[in-house]
Amino acid sequence: MIETPYLLFLGDAPDQLAAKVAVGIKDWRPENAVGQYRMDDCKADLGLTDMTLTEAKEAGAKTLVIGVANRGGVISQEWKKVLVMALEEGFDLASGLHNLLRDEPDLVAVAEATGQKLHDVRVPEVDYPIANGKKRKGKRCLAVGTDCSVGKMYTAMAMDAEMRKRGMKSTFRATGQTGILITGDGVPLDAVIADFMAGSIEWLTPDNDDDHWDLIEGQGSLFHVSYSGVTMALIHGGQPDALILSHEPTREHMRGLPTYQQPSLETLHDTALALAKVANPDCQVVGVSVNTQHMSEEDAIAYLATIEADMGLPATDPFRFGSGKLVDALAAM
Amino acid sequence: MIETPYLLFLGDAPDQLAAKVAVGIKDWRPENAVGQYRMDDCKADLGLTDMTLTEAKEAGAKTLVIGVANRGGVISQEWKKVLVMALEEGFDLASGLHNLLRDEPDLVAVAEATGQKLHDVRVPEVDYPIANGKKRKGKRCLAVGTDCSVGKMYTAMAMDAEMRKRGMKSTFRATGQTGILITGDGVPLDAVIADFMAGSIEWLTPDNDDDHWDLIEGQGSLFHVSYSGVTMALIHGGQPDALILSHEPTREHMRGLPTYQQPSLETLHDTALALAKVANPDCQVVGVSVNTQHMSEEDAIAYLATIEADMGLPATDPFRFGSGKLVDALAAM
Repeated sequence: MIETPYLLFLGDAPDQLAAKVAVGIKDWRPENAVGQYRMDDCKADLGLTDMTLTEAKEAGAKTLVIGVANRGGVISQEWKKVLVMALEEGFDLASGLHNLLRDEPDLVAVAEATGQKLHDVRVPEVDYPIANGKKRKGKRCLAVGTDCSVGKMYTAMAMDAEMRKRGMKSTFRATGQTGILITGDGVPLDAVIADFMAGSIEWLTPDNDDDHWDLIEGQGSLFHVSYSGVTMALIHGGQPDALILSHEPTREHMRGLPTYQQPSLETLHDTALALAKVANPDCQVVGVSVNTQHMSEEDAIAYLATIEADMGLPATDPFRFGSGKLVDALAAM
Repeated sequence: MIETPYLLFLGDAPDQLAAKVAVGIKDWRPENAVGQYRMDDCKADLGLTDMTLTEAKEAGAKTLVIGVANRGGVISQEWKKVLVMALEEGFDLASGLHNLLRDEPDLVAVAEATGQKLHDVRVPEVDYPIANGKKRKGKRCLAVGTDCSVGKMYTAMAMDAEMRKRGMKSTFRATGQTGILITGDGVPLDAVIADFMAGSIEWLTPDNDDDHWDLIEGQGSLFHVSYSGVTMALIHGGQPDALILSHEPTREHMRGLPTYQQPSLETLHDTALALAKVANPDCQVVGVSVNTQHMSEEDAIAYLATIEADMGLPATDPFRFGSGKLVDALAAM
């Protein structure tokens, strides 16, 4: 979908956090990042080679990816200069910004004149089908959360990396803009029309080898009333063979919903599994992924041990302790 | 949203079934239908007064509603003649056709010149918010089905009519194109962007009097993998106080999914109620609505009696036996 490898545009990022998307690409798909492009007052640094557009082109880069959030929702004139030059040098552009490249008449005009592509990964570029529910070959794993933003993408990314390290067949399947920019492909599920949500996930995870795993990026939560429909479509469109439960134990309420409490892991287990069995009666819950970033290491270890004892499932924080236990569980299926 | 009352355009309908939308308007909102417009070879007849555009205008009609399916997905030149004249006579146009009025340059040009509106009810006309989950005043009832197309709209329409007859405060809240054309307002939920589904239902069913009931039109089914995400958004965005279970007992498999079986009413009860309690802990299942159209009257009565005994809930076929039992259940809450 998006041609790789990339030159990562960091612009005038005020700090490293603003370049979150670029950091994600460099961490998870270093082979997609031939270098970084920083403007004079850029405060972020990925530790990649600083390149001019010409140098990056010579090094094989195909797409300039905007790996940084812009200020105030406006693509500034300073950025524009670089973006226009990049198009003229033969780069495609890719962006996950709210304000779309395609809404900037000057970028559109230059892209047309040069024959280069503008990828706004927040906007679907495919006419997805309505889901048909047909059983597909190959295996699929989906992380479902007690809440939004508890580490579902990270879990799937980490499992995919571990599986490839072990020589297992796996593919991370992105369903959000960051994941799409990292891998160059995927479905921007939150922007898909309601009737086609489940179908877009079927499209994303087609027939595959019997021993191949799709690691599907989760979204939302069945217990988050703003986004639960999106989660439901992932469960039924993805027809997962394996579910991972994702949790962040220190939240005081559901993200953005002060009067809503997180469900217990047991409630999530039973609810998600029953719904998943509608599409795949053989589905199993195989492990728990806990985001322990707000806990001490000692507390994290104790918490994971309690979960393992209570739930009878392997539990880990993939960022802190690796995803090996979860991959072991998939390998054992 | 759509100005009422209507002149119902039946075009060259080959039979009564093709005029399904117009029949729905005449059955459920006769006060919205001042007359019918039939072309020479029209085989449908609503029993309304046949009117010219001028006569309908004089009788107060504001909008010409296309109450008939077109052939081959093309708005024919014969239809166009009438539609253009209607715009010039001062009518707005409203349509639920797949091919949109707004995609016809001649209609757009005449609408602009005359200042009239083109309503394509398949396409959202509102920027819906993301759901905030806040508790709203007033009461809400939602029908959830074991499958798609089991009579959820009919159930809500029939309950709304019965409640108004009894002097109760109620509003039918349309979530599909037929319902929107019938009532002139609503959310075309299947066409809403994923992130805004639940928010669109919050928008549709705002704060109201404590003794007012919104009868929300259900869509899809939690057990239909193509559309379950839409159903989920209705349950969480609608935060219903009361659920009605809808069922069609003679189906051999889920609609359009030959390898999927319908769940039992008990499974639907437990699954839907548990999910509804996330948004509204006081939610109750209050009754069962059965579509018995493929059963003899004797079988239907026996079936409903069995359901009542097994589930401990009032059960009726609102089309055949009226919706009184279901309204009694709401009134008793």
